[in-house]
Amino acid sequence: MRIIVPLQGLLQGRSGLALGVIIPLLSFYFIQLRPKRSQQQHRLNTTPAAEELPPPAAPAVTLKKEPLLHDHHLLSPQHSEEASSSSTTTIVQEATISERALWILRSCSSEWTAVPENAYDEMHNPTGCIQLAVPINKLSLDLIQDWLCNHLSNTPGHETFLNLEEVADYEFLGGLQRVRTVLANFMGIVIGGGKRVMFDPANVIITAGLSAAIEMLVFCLAQPGDAILIPTPYDSRFDKDIKWRTQVEIIPVPCYAHDNFSVTRGNLETAYHSALQRGMTVRAVLLSTPSYPVGNVLDRATLQSILSFTHENSIHLISDEVYAGCVFEDSDFVSVAEILESSECDRSRVHIIYGLSKDLGVVGFQVGVLYSWNMQVIAAASKLTRFCGTSSHTQGILAPLLADESFIKTFLTKNHCRITQRHRKVVTALDAVGIKFAKSSGGLFCWIFLGHCLRSSSQEEETRLCRYVSEEMGVHLTPGSSSCSCPEPGWFSLCFAGVDDQTLNIALQRLQKLAPGVQY
Amino acid sequence: MRIIVPLQGLLQGRSGLALGVIIPLLSFYFIQLRPKRSQQQHRLNTTPAAEELPPPAAPAVTLKKEPLLHDHHLLSPQHSEEASSSSTTTIVQEATISERALWILRSCSSEWTAVPENAYDEMHNPTGCIQLAVPINKLSLDLIQDWLCNHLSNTPGHETFLNLEEVADYEFLGGLQRVRTVLANFMGIVIGGGKRVMFDPANVIITAGLSAAIEMLVFCLAQPGDAILIPTPYDSRFDKDIKWRTQVEIIPVPCYAHDNFSVTRGNLETAYHSALQRGMTVRAVLLSTPSYPVGNVLDRATLQSILSFTHENSIHLISDEVYAGCVFEDSDFVSVAEILESSECDRSRVHIIYGLSKDLGVVGFQVGVLYSWNMQVIAAASKLTRFCGTSSHTQGILAPLLADESFIKTFLTKNHCRITQRHRKVVTALDAVGIKFAKSSGGLFCWIFLGHCLRSSSQEEETRLCRYVSEEMGVHLTPGSSSCSCPEPGWFSLCFAGVDDQTLNIALQRLQKLAPGVQY
Repeated sequence: MRIIVPLQGLLQGRSGLALGVIIPLLSFYFIQLRPKRSQQQHRLNTTPAAEELPPPAAPAVTLKKEPLLHDHHLLSPQHSEEASSSSTTTIVQEATISERALWILRSCSSEWTAVPENAYDEMHNPTGCIQLAVPINKLSLDLIQDWLCNHLSNTPGHETFLNLEEVADYEFLGGLQRVRTVLANFMGIVIGGGKRVMFDPANVIITAGLSAAIEMLVFCLAQPGDAILIPTPYDSRFDKDIKWRTQVEIIPVPCYAHDNFSVTRGNLETAYHSALQRGMTVRAVLLSTPSYPVGNVLDRATLQSILSFTHENSIHLISDEVYAGCVFEDSDFVSVAEILESSECDRSRVHIIYGLSKDLGVVGFQVGVLYSWNMQVIAAASKLTRFCGTSSHTQGILAPLLADESFIKTFLTKNHCRITQRHRKVVTALDAVGIKFAKSSGGLFCWIFLGHCLRSSSQEEETRLCRYVSEEMGVHLTPGSSSCSCPEPGWFSLCFAGVDDQTLNIALQRLQKLAPGVQY
Repeated sequence: MRIIVPLQGLLQGRSGLALGVIIPLLSFYFIQLRPKRSQQQHRLNTTPAAEELPPPAAPAVTLKKEPLLHDHHLLSPQHSEEASSSSTTTIVQEATISERALWILRSCSSEWTAVPENAYDEMHNPTGCIQLAVPINKLSLDLIQDWLCNHLSNTPGHETFLNLEEVADYEFLGGLQRVRTVLANFMGIVIGGGKRVMFDPANVIITAGLSAAIEMLVFCLAQPGDAILIPTPYDSRFDKDIKWRTQVEIIPVPCYAHDNFSVTRGNLETAYHSALQRGMTVRAVLLSTPSYPVGNVLDRATLQSILSFTHENSIHLISDEVYAGCVFEDSDFVSVAEILESSECDRSRVHIIYGLSKDLGVVGFQVGVLYSWNMQVIAAASKLTRFCGTSSHTQGILAPLLADESFIKTFLTKNHCRITQRHRKVVTALDAVGIKFAKSSGGLFCWIFLGHCLRSSSQEEETRLCRYVSEEMGVHLTPGSSSCSCPEPGWFSLCFAGVDDQTLNIALQRLQKLAPGVQY
């Protein structure tokens, strides 16, 4: 501007009109069109999801025979076409994958690997690293194994593991009808508080694992760019399941140590209104009870107040109840389904995520469950199960086990007892050396505080400590702020249900060096 | 700038300059700014996927307790916020699902249902409808059943169906390592022409069924809006697997009856260049061999020429070889893997889709396979298998069966023989009454022509005939133009491998009425 105006003054002598036209047009070109063009150029190379990425590098055009498989060059559409139209030349471009796939790879590249290479083994690698970072449940697997051994046979005519009848057809992929019926009844026992609430098989969709159920539900509730509120700390799986392909945003709702990381209607309201002010479209609140990594179990009053909040604001409530069968003996689990029974709230905005991977410990069976009162969600999800059906053979094996109510009740009692004992063992050991931990009422894990071992209160320092504990002390924990979006660095998740007693003892011994006042 | 420059001109008393400035600025506003504004407005109301949809209806704001679950009202972001901020009122909006989920439901609403309610049953419903529309293979399931009965037991210590060791851990979801090894070897036998070509377990990803493998691969190769060329007629599954969530376009490459629906490099080139001219970004060609619904098996020369075409144009080649083990006895199957062995082409742009649902008939086992020479695709797909893992229990049962080479060879020989006999039975019956059919070399189906029964050559008329044959004549076929994107109406797919001999005889008898010259 400052240049153009004086220039204009100088030049307007004779051909004022001509210059008056040319100058603003030129200025317009340089000020408006050029930036826009380069923006368009940039936009061609990016998608909404990819905008978080650094701008793509120029494509490499090389004469080659063997592909460089690990290159990260991106192929822009123009270049693709240029190369394509010269179909007689042998100059080809290196194969690339899509930007969205690259983005997923990049987002994993800084991931703290959950399976250390130097795994502990009592016999073969007694100084190896003990894996306490993954929330798995091996405490009651023997009960499942025994039941299957005693009840299934390969004798034709019996309840058998070999009936291939159900395997040959394209049956309803969202779960065999008979298995959905059995599963609904099972849910009534486990999450319905011993059938205080009943579940309807028509509202059940079975998916290949929990992630598929979450992804599918979020796809059905939100458009790309819409947001979901999740109280922190939360399971890093949500970042993958919700953002990766479905491109929905997560708005973390900060909860803090002074409150034992409890979520309240107040927390949610603040985060919600702040999101609206930023112009976001919030579609749902996602709650976990018992929560990972803390182990908080939501009580009736809290659930009721949050349900009212979502109802009044016409947003969805997703209740992740995948650890429902893992509460400690002296605690009482309440499902959102039970609150809904005595509520005036709109059921079609309430959905439960469940699965057998935690309560039964059968991760590999790949049985996730979406339970929704919204029949449009059920209809759309049924269509989407073409991408994530659970083996009907596995369903067939599980059906009689889940239907055996007497076994299920015994199993749950024993599972509660074993989990409680494990938790007690861990907190007793931590208490003995003065390591702090969050209060919890359920789950396969303990949320411990090692902030006193950090040189400064930062995520980087937490990651350093986590790596040190893994590599130098031989215990693999989950770092809270980098893996669970915890707003306060220094918290770690210790999963106590994936190893045997002896191994857990060794891990707890190793961790003693992290006690306050001890030089680790 | 826009305001100051004209003002300056005016103040200096030179009207020429003033007009010279005002005119281009006004033109600029009307030519550039106004359309851009309305574009932005439009963009706010749509997403890339939603652009094919009708504009969203205004949301219904009603005072209600019970949700109307089947309403199709869409909630626009603005209205959602309006309702949200009035958090004290009890006026809530009806729950809605996302536009993209609604779009999927709508795209299915006109679908010709594959499972008629009035299903044929020899004993209980002998006049019911015989299902010949779904390409399933029940011809050799007895062999699988026998093998499992004879080789697996529930005795601890034996190869057992009850080993839960692998079930408890979050192992690599893209397939247990040992199963991927066994599967790669199995692929060498079935699609590698008896190990003329070997497959590397490191390039194998196991997914929960075929659709998951296709969706995942396309996600890794293309951005939303990019396109894939597929010769017609093609399996309607591609429309779902490629478009629904991944939002990649399909460009049908028309192939015609006079050529027995054969695809050539020429067909592909024409479609490819026409797509480029329309400004599309073509990322891949998807070929099926043997093809559904025709049953064409691509020979070496054709595969070589198409591979050269994709190589020269730097696009990917996806080879769907899911019916590789279903070729007829006198035919020879050639995998793109074999062509690649003796080719200079870039392997990182070649990918094979496989699975056990057709060759072994075990649909419900949910074992799809993505085989790729591109290790970036393998890396990204491994991450994505969190959404579509196959039950590790099912993998465990399949592993020893797939590893039994002697059984597999016997199985394949018998399977080829039984499929060939079935096909011969069908074409003999059709020949006898003069119903035309396409020449085929493999598959579980016959592509028959009933154009003489159409009152006019249109898709609507074809659908009417399909419905008539199903409802009035009791045989359920797949209509070619509406379900398989066939460019010529009147073709139908008849799947002969999902019913027993007796039932197939009855179906063929019923179809005699459709012979040319007979009044149906």
